[in-house]
Amino acid sequence: MKCSVLFIEILIFGINFSSGEYVYNVNYVDVPVDHFSFTNNATFKLRYLINSSYWNNDGPIFFYTGNEGDINTFAQNSGFIWEIAPSFKALIVFCEHRYYGTSLPFGDKSFSDPIYVGYLHSAQALADFVYVIDHIQTLNGNGEDDSKNPVIAFGGSYGGMLSSWLRMKYPSSVLGAVASSAPILQFETPCDVFSSIVTSVFRTSSETNDCADVIKKSWSALRNVTGSAEGRQWLTKTWKLCDTLKDNDVEVLFNWLQDVYGNLAMVNYPYPTSFLSTLPANPVKAFCSKLPVTTHKPKPLIEELGRALNIYTNYTKQTKCVNITKSSWGGIDDFAWNFQACTEMIMPMCSTKRDMFEEQAWNYTKFSQDCYEVWKVHIARPNLAIREYGGKHLAAASNIIFTNGLMDPWSGGGVLQNVSRSVYAIVMPDTAHHLDLRGYNIADPPSVLNARYHIQVVIRKWIRTYYREYLNMYYH
Amino acid sequence: MKCSVLFIEILIFGINFSSGEYVYNVNYVDVPVDHFSFTNNATFKLRYLINSSYWNNDGPIFFYTGNEGDINTFAQNSGFIWEIAPSFKALIVFCEHRYYGTSLPFGDKSFSDPIYVGYLHSAQALADFVYVIDHIQTLNGNGEDDSKNPVIAFGGSYGGMLSSWLRMKYPSSVLGAVASSAPILQFETPCDVFSSIVTSVFRTSSETNDCADVIKKSWSALRNVTGSAEGRQWLTKTWKLCDTLKDNDVEVLFNWLQDVYGNLAMVNYPYPTSFLSTLPANPVKAFCSKLPVTTHKPKPLIEELGRALNIYTNYTKQTKCVNITKSSWGGIDDFAWNFQACTEMIMPMCSTKRDMFEEQAWNYTKFSQDCYEVWKVHIARPNLAIREYGGKHLAAASNIIFTNGLMDPWSGGGVLQNVSRSVYAIVMPDTAHHLDLRGYNIADPPSVLNARYHIQVVIRKWIRTYYREYLNMYYH
Repeated sequence: MKCSVLFIEILIFGINFSSGEYVYNVNYVDVPVDHFSFTNNATFKLRYLINSSYWNNDGPIFFYTGNEGDINTFAQNSGFIWEIAPSFKALIVFCEHRYYGTSLPFGDKSFSDPIYVGYLHSAQALADFVYVIDHIQTLNGNGEDDSKNPVIAFGGSYGGMLSSWLRMKYPSSVLGAVASSAPILQFETPCDVFSSIVTSVFRTSSETNDCADVIKKSWSALRNVTGSAEGRQWLTKTWKLCDTLKDNDVEVLFNWLQDVYGNLAMVNYPYPTSFLSTLPANPVKAFCSKLPVTTHKPKPLIEELGRALNIYTNYTKQTKCVNITKSSWGGIDDFAWNFQACTEMIMPMCSTKRDMFEEQAWNYTKFSQDCYEVWKVHIARPNLAIREYGGKHLAAASNIIFTNGLMDPWSGGGVLQNVSRSVYAIVMPDTAHHLDLRGYNIADPPSVLNARYHIQVVIRKWIRTYYREYLNMYYH
Repeated sequence: MKCSVLFIEILIFGINFSSGEYVYNVNYVDVPVDHFSFTNNATFKLRYLINSSYWNNDGPIFFYTGNEGDINTFAQNSGFIWEIAPSFKALIVFCEHRYYGTSLPFGDKSFSDPIYVGYLHSAQALADFVYVIDHIQTLNGNGEDDSKNPVIAFGGSYGGMLSSWLRMKYPSSVLGAVASSAPILQFETPCDVFSSIVTSVFRTSSETNDCADVIKKSWSALRNVTGSAEGRQWLTKTWKLCDTLKDNDVEVLFNWLQDVYGNLAMVNYPYPTSFLSTLPANPVKAFCSKLPVTTHKPKPLIEELGRALNIYTNYTKQTKCVNITKSSWGGIDDFAWNFQACTEMIMPMCSTKRDMFEEQAWNYTKFSQDCYEVWKVHIARPNLAIREYGGKHLAAASNIIFTNGLMDPWSGGGVLQNVSRSVYAIVMPDTAHHLDLRGYNIADPPSVLNARYHIQVVIRKWIRTYYREYLNMYYH
């Protein structure tokens, strides 16, 4: 079974499996800062990447709806789109999300005040995408409404949420959407789902210890050590932190650790990658293998944990010190995302006794206060995203594929069951965060190869139907 | 056939056909001025009218999406909703559109500057409606997502466009929409469609003359007379204009006349009404019967036209003088609507040699300049509404009924053919603007009775399916 699927994949993808860089032109469109009022005429330059080398005039547009980071990062980490484009004769577009990368509506001051950062809103980002699609259709000579190239939206994670929402809100601009690891239900799921999946990934990733159990024990050791100035000094030296740990940095450290564990689970890919950090294959396993703990005494435990964390922070051996104000590298922009997490993308998070994390309830009041301190924005509408996008009520949606790896902590907020005859859920039991969107690798499990095959079949069906119904043309 | 339909209507409607005033409570909700940015926290009081006397807890919410005027006007002129509510055990809500009636986001200064009036945007209005629906669901004790009352949106004209768009954009808030005389395709239809239908209404409304032909001839007579100061003086006196007609009022007069003819065709109802103006039954026929013109000499022709216009301007015999700066009375707000027509709702209008109007091309440049003079807003996005709502591409929509009377000038921009198994078009060949939304009248033609019956059957199907699929309940 594995072989035959692989064989089909090879036939469809062609033979260029090189994991090298993908190439494209960089373009910009002037888009309105505010699509939903006429209070001002301000525009800004939204960046998009485009490659037309596989495209013929009738081919579809594969449109990646950029997420919380530099769009180059997503273009370089979404090999699947590049690999299937030739057989679809598709135009490839990766469009940046406003307020990320170079697409800053107000330049340097974009984050300085609510009157600037306030336009960082998913509805505005979707309207940007529609604007850019229109722009590209016009460039393609599709002034006439009926001759438009069909557009397939792709996205992973928050980008996947956007691609599904883009199809829901703008079905006349976007024929269908592939939403990989898109936790559109995370606003409503029990708050411990994320922690619980991370725990199970760590629990099952080591043959020699219960890695999750060791981590669970480390929290009290860390509380113990970081409770004194000498302890913090010792930790700073032992873990090679860039800045001496102060009393009020302790929470920062704990949050950073939680993020690192979550990230390790998310990018727990079966081959070396450099997405959130430069990592070996199966990084959780690699991490856990460094924790052959026989002692639970605080300092030896923390020393071992520090060595294990090097898998995430210094796999390249180039890192001079560990910066705990940043939990991912590459193009992801945690700072701007924090604004979105504080305003619209409010996903309640907690951990319980059963998880490997410190027990922590979801505290909306504290969350809201912390957000206000940073952004000076009151969140009067905590259920905004549910109201805007419908939450779990997807019956009216059409032409969306939701893919989820069940070892991905975000899968708890994903769509895991078919919704209708045109809203599909593809579940990959053994994979991490949007592995299916990445380029082919010999280490890919069969579930991912199957998903990629299934996605292509469905996209082809959508496009065929589109050409038949709208253009009376045959597409093969 | 007519009798049997009428009989069913009577069974369904109950026996209260009184055309008296409908009663309701007046409520307000604080809604955000800007749903799509976090630049400010301003809110304002949006007005809605509510009647729960027919409602039981499981019944649907009939939600009228207010249009360009005081919401009371629409509540009093949409008797159909009131008449069917008892049999559905429905909660009736008429929600005002922002910037109309008392729902002014910035009070007196709401129209004074783009920074205030700029939030007059249909997308913001739709978000208001969703906000109010959420508010009412919460008041109804539907905090739990799955126990929500099904919402059916109703609307006529621009309100009908909104009700259909509300279902398209927010299907999880609104189960289905009844869009009566909603010209959602008017952005893309040939610009002379409106003029052409008005012409055919006037052409076919008189037995003794070709009324359209007389009007067509009147334009040169009017140009002739209004070309001189004495002529304008004479016209002021003859037509009893409130203000002496000056040279630069001539275009105002011509625009007013066009509007009056359009309005007469729109509200050409088979019984006396007071919607846009107080009028007799079949007002176009009444107007044309006053024009038994045997002469085409300018002054006698204009004198007769003046007497005919009294049907529209002074049917009550209470009007002291004719105010040409206002073409409708009651609750419609032409001023605020002008902002919408200038920014989003750009519907190209023209008239040709074949129409009863003066020949006039669609001149976007002039239109845009005129708009800028009034509002100081540059319209950089003339196809905004098409991009936002998809124009004629309705394949992804569901649960919408579009009704249109073919004698309604706006039907040229309406959806006149079924789109899918759940997006229906009901066409009434012999009726004017959203007659079907009005209360029952003995003079209603069978096409309207049929439409009203059909609408009820479909709404009942939607609600039954909703209860079966979401709540596992039986609704009859």
